[in-house]
Amino acid sequence: MRTYLDCIPCFFKQALEAARIAEVEPEAQREILNALAQTLPDFPLEASPPEMGRIIHRIVKRITKVEDPYREIKDRSNCFALEYYDRLIDKVEQSGDRLLTAVELAIAGNIIDYGVKNILDVDAELRRILEHEHMSVKHKDGKTFQIEEFRITLDKAKTVVYLADNTGETVFDRVLIEEIKRKDPEKEIFYIVKDKPIINDALIKDAQDCGIDKVAVIMSSGSDAPGTILSFCSDEFLNRFRAADLVISKGQGNFEGLSGTPVDSLYYLLLAKCPVIANDIGCDVGDVILLKAKTH
Amino acid sequence: MRTYLDCIPCFFKQALEAARIAEVEPEAQREILNALAQTLPDFPLEASPPEMGRIIHRIVKRITKVEDPYREIKDRSNCFALEYYDRLIDKVEQSGDRLLTAVELAIAGNIIDYGVKNILDVDAELRRILEHEHMSVKHKDGKTFQIEEFRITLDKAKTVVYLADNTGETVFDRVLIEEIKRKDPEKEIFYIVKDKPIINDALIKDAQDCGIDKVAVIMSSGSDAPGTILSFCSDEFLNRFRAADLVISKGQGNFEGLSGTPVDSLYYLLLAKCPVIANDIGCDVGDVILLKAKTH
Repeated sequence: MRTYLDCIPCFFKQALEAARIAEVEPEAQREILNALAQTLPDFPLEASPPEMGRIIHRIVKRITKVEDPYREIKDRSNCFALEYYDRLIDKVEQSGDRLLTAVELAIAGNIIDYGVKNILDVDAELRRILEHEHMSVKHKDGKTFQIEEFRITLDKAKTVVYLADNTGETVFDRVLIEEIKRKDPEKEIFYIVKDKPIINDALIKDAQDCGIDKVAVIMSSGSDAPGTILSFCSDEFLNRFRAADLVISKGQGNFEGLSGTPVDSLYYLLLAKCPVIANDIGCDVGDVILLKAKTH
Repeated sequence: MRTYLDCIPCFFKQALEAARIAEVEPEAQREILNALAQTLPDFPLEASPPEMGRIIHRIVKRITKVEDPYREIKDRSNCFALEYYDRLIDKVEQSGDRLLTAVELAIAGNIIDYGVKNILDVDAELRRILEHEHMSVKHKDGKTFQIEEFRITLDKAKTVVYLADNTGETVFDRVLIEEIKRKDPEKEIFYIVKDKPIINDALIKDAQDCGIDKVAVIMSSGSDAPGTILSFCSDEFLNRFRAADLVISKGQGNFEGLSGTPVDSLYYLLLAKCPVIANDIGCDVGDVILLKAKTH
């Protein structure tokens, strides 16, 4: 997805938030916003928002000298999500459509963002989701929730590349991966995390902490952009990505990074949390999205 | 009020909104955001937000070549508000505390912002306000709604300077001014508008269109900042301002411009619509504020 003009105010908001999470003085916070302002005129809107995200968080690291400002938040998100694990498994066990439930839960995990903010709201929202049979009330139509196409591609797939998003959410991904493996233990699944700390995105350590290593091969994308931008990724990742029979792309960042690129057999699983992305997809904010990528 | 770091993302939002209201192409919108980004590092945070507001809207005018992008919206806001006039007068007539009601209505008029957006919401909100005896439910305590102190200052005042805010809202101001004049026709009232087009702020024409000329002397502040910044105002205005026994300052912009300056007998009447201002005042977003200015 290209960068929209509406993303620009939000870039400054993100930079300020990251500066505050790094706990630096207001003077350093201002310096970060000024550095972003100086970068802005040269940033091409044809580039995707995670490209600017990478620039912003490099500025934050340079000025704050804090390598991983979100580390504590990420650990908290993982712990928070792990407490849900048994309930998630029960929910799948009790479901009449296990795969649909596992997919819905994986998308629901995308609610866990930053973890610190409104942890009680996230908890209440997740409890609400767990009480209902399906989140299907939010699947407005088959256009933005293509579960039947997804089932067919998944059934035939021998190798699956799963692009991770946030920490915490990783536990919900594990539930979906376990369901995929339960049905077909022969499937080879690669769980792809970011190469270096970027916002609250999952790293190798987070995937391990959430037990992904029990069900998939954990790999880095080779990139520290907060979304998959193929030109920044390692050859090792690109080989896996291109050879996969199915790519599962989680969250807004990966959608933003990839949605301009035609890819075969790739499905975006996300909650549309931002109005610009919702507008780009043609859905409402809050919608549960399972969308096949364009192939040309 | 000084500029907070949280105002910076909002400056970009305001610039984009103004560019779109001026109906220019995305390229020109981008040019406006870039020009703002170039200005930002030199902007001192000790300055108040309307100083940046003035800079932003000068950039918008320079690049769009549209002198008054909000003209149509302003006319619409005036017409919309004039349709309320009879109901507002009835409300005051039926009130057991006419001044309180007139003050509350003048603050309620501050809901009319831009006019175009959510005109139905504004209408619903105003109807709701008109149905209730008082808005007093929102006066949390005497600290941020100092009606009794206001009554005393008003009773003794011979000359009143009334700092206008938005178009449309002007009709609600007229109702308060009429109530003040009804009780004491000898009071001299100066209604101060902006000197040149700036956002949807009232100009001399708007005050006339809303019938203020029947109840007060309409004057310009001599400034085109979207809030009263004394150093930008004309001597003619400053003389009136300093000689006044009471200054009524409407809206967030005037609060932002003046609240750092100690002034005798000045009261801020506003709806706290922005979280930064609410935090500065020590109230919640949505609160109805009648606050005496600091005198030292």
